[in-house]
Amino acid sequence: MAKVIGLVGVGLIGGSMVLDLKEKGFASKIIGSDLSDTNLKKALELKIIDEAVDLDNLISRSDIIVLATPVNATVELVPYVLDRISEDKFVLDVGSTKSMLSDAVANHANRGNFVATHPMSGTEFSGPEAAFKGLFKDRVAIICDPEKSNPKALNVISEMYYHLDMRLILMDAHSHDEHVGYVSHLSHAISYALAVAVLDKEKDDTAIFNLAAGGFASTVRLAKSSVDMWLPIFEQNADHILPILDIYLDKLSSFRNYLEQRDTEQLGKFIKEANRIKDKLKK
Amino acid sequence: MAKVIGLVGVGLIGGSMVLDLKEKGFASKIIGSDLSDTNLKKALELKIIDEAVDLDNLISRSDIIVLATPVNATVELVPYVLDRISEDKFVLDVGSTKSMLSDAVANHANRGNFVATHPMSGTEFSGPEAAFKGLFKDRVAIICDPEKSNPKALNVISEMYYHLDMRLILMDAHSHDEHVGYVSHLSHAISYALAVAVLDKEKDDTAIFNLAAGGFASTVRLAKSSVDMWLPIFEQNADHILPILDIYLDKLSSFRNYLEQRDTEQLGKFIKEANRIKDKLKK
Repeated sequence: MAKVIGLVGVGLIGGSMVLDLKEKGFASKIIGSDLSDTNLKKALELKIIDEAVDLDNLISRSDIIVLATPVNATVELVPYVLDRISEDKFVLDVGSTKSMLSDAVANHANRGNFVATHPMSGTEFSGPEAAFKGLFKDRVAIICDPEKSNPKALNVISEMYYHLDMRLILMDAHSHDEHVGYVSHLSHAISYALAVAVLDKEKDDTAIFNLAAGGFASTVRLAKSSVDMWLPIFEQNADHILPILDIYLDKLSSFRNYLEQRDTEQLGKFIKEANRIKDKLKK
Repeated sequence: MAKVIGLVGVGLIGGSMVLDLKEKGFASKIIGSDLSDTNLKKALELKIIDEAVDLDNLISRSDIIVLATPVNATVELVPYVLDRISEDKFVLDVGSTKSMLSDAVANHANRGNFVATHPMSGTEFSGPEAAFKGLFKDRVAIICDPEKSNPKALNVISEMYYHLDMRLILMDAHSHDEHVGYVSHLSHAISYALAVAVLDKEKDDTAIFNLAAGGFASTVRLAKSSVDMWLPIFEQNADHILPILDIYLDKLSSFRNYLEQRDTEQLGKFIKEANRIKDKLKK
């Protein structure tokens, strides 16, 4: 039976999810809530949501409550929502960090009605205007700590991701934060630093930035990502990101030293080792 | 009048150029030469070139000679070709470094018939199979040290780039190498280091690499780039790349230290500063 979905946070991720869930018939109605009235109005205009409501109204009227807010807000929201739901309602988050959230709800009486998820897709843009259909197709969604959710909740939420055409991987919150630290958070950190370094040097000449269209653009793309979303991610996952950043800084320093010494053999080895990433990534 | 173009190095860049130049009618015939017989055969099969010849034959029969080889080979090839041309033939390179090349031909009697150019486009792939029409459309081509080429040579080569739909920017070789160090070479260095760091850590689990499809894939894309092309670029431009790499390492270390200290204010400032890159890049 099609569900009423309550979307808290009408941005890129949540907006894109409900656009597809409505189209696929999984959702009969989308009601939305957001701290920003501007974004809430835009989401209505763009037909991402059918109705704008306040949070308590949303909780009481939804079958499934999707929390698609920055991760610092999510840690506060999950217990607040779990305090107020009946046993036939399910709650999920879609955030990029899980350890702190896992701890925050570990002992909640309604923990079983919550599923910690991370649909791994996105763009460097944010807000309801950035939402589009098909964002999640064929991407991976991670379900964290599935043994802490009750079977009914897992069933409903996995069906929801089935309708988004996503592939599910189940893992514990700690492993999630470590892996995601590597493949997502580290990439954002090095991209932010690239933007800051280049802006520091190339102060005057905006034409220069567009020279290397392909290469520079793809490496610096993530540096456009929103501070409201990413600052809380870095803070919540600092313990996993710091050792990863140190390994990265160490590797790049080695490259720098080989270059300074004009050590052709070591530089060549380094690049060939990097080339092995080809075999690890899908075409 | 349509020209016979001699292409030395039948890879991604040279191959893509001649495919368009033939289609646009600027070239009447493409003859090709390459150290790799395999690539030369592939280029014939793919109709990138009309005829495979040896280098001396190519030089004597071409109106325009395009040197699209790794930059270490280019530094040797330009004087070799200039030694053997008549005054109605023109030579250009398309490499990513210019200072060393500029020095190598500074005093050549036929310097005026050579134009140092850098059409700024590409992909992470290489070889004739990677070539495709439209690679250069609306991208920037840099002409280096135009005052050292004679007016006829500049006229012919600028017409050639007109037929590739490229926008020309003229600058001296030193400025080219410094700017390109920032927007292209640095991006490659940090992407290679990302690949090496992640491969070092995530030894076993290939599924992990595909988790963060969008973000990681775009940041690590350049790490697939060929060692034959990139090792000589790093070596030739080391003097410009080293100070840039040091600025980058310094910025990323600052980010790391703010994160370790959980300094929300400085982390937020850093990300907002990085976000300014949005205004500098074309949509």
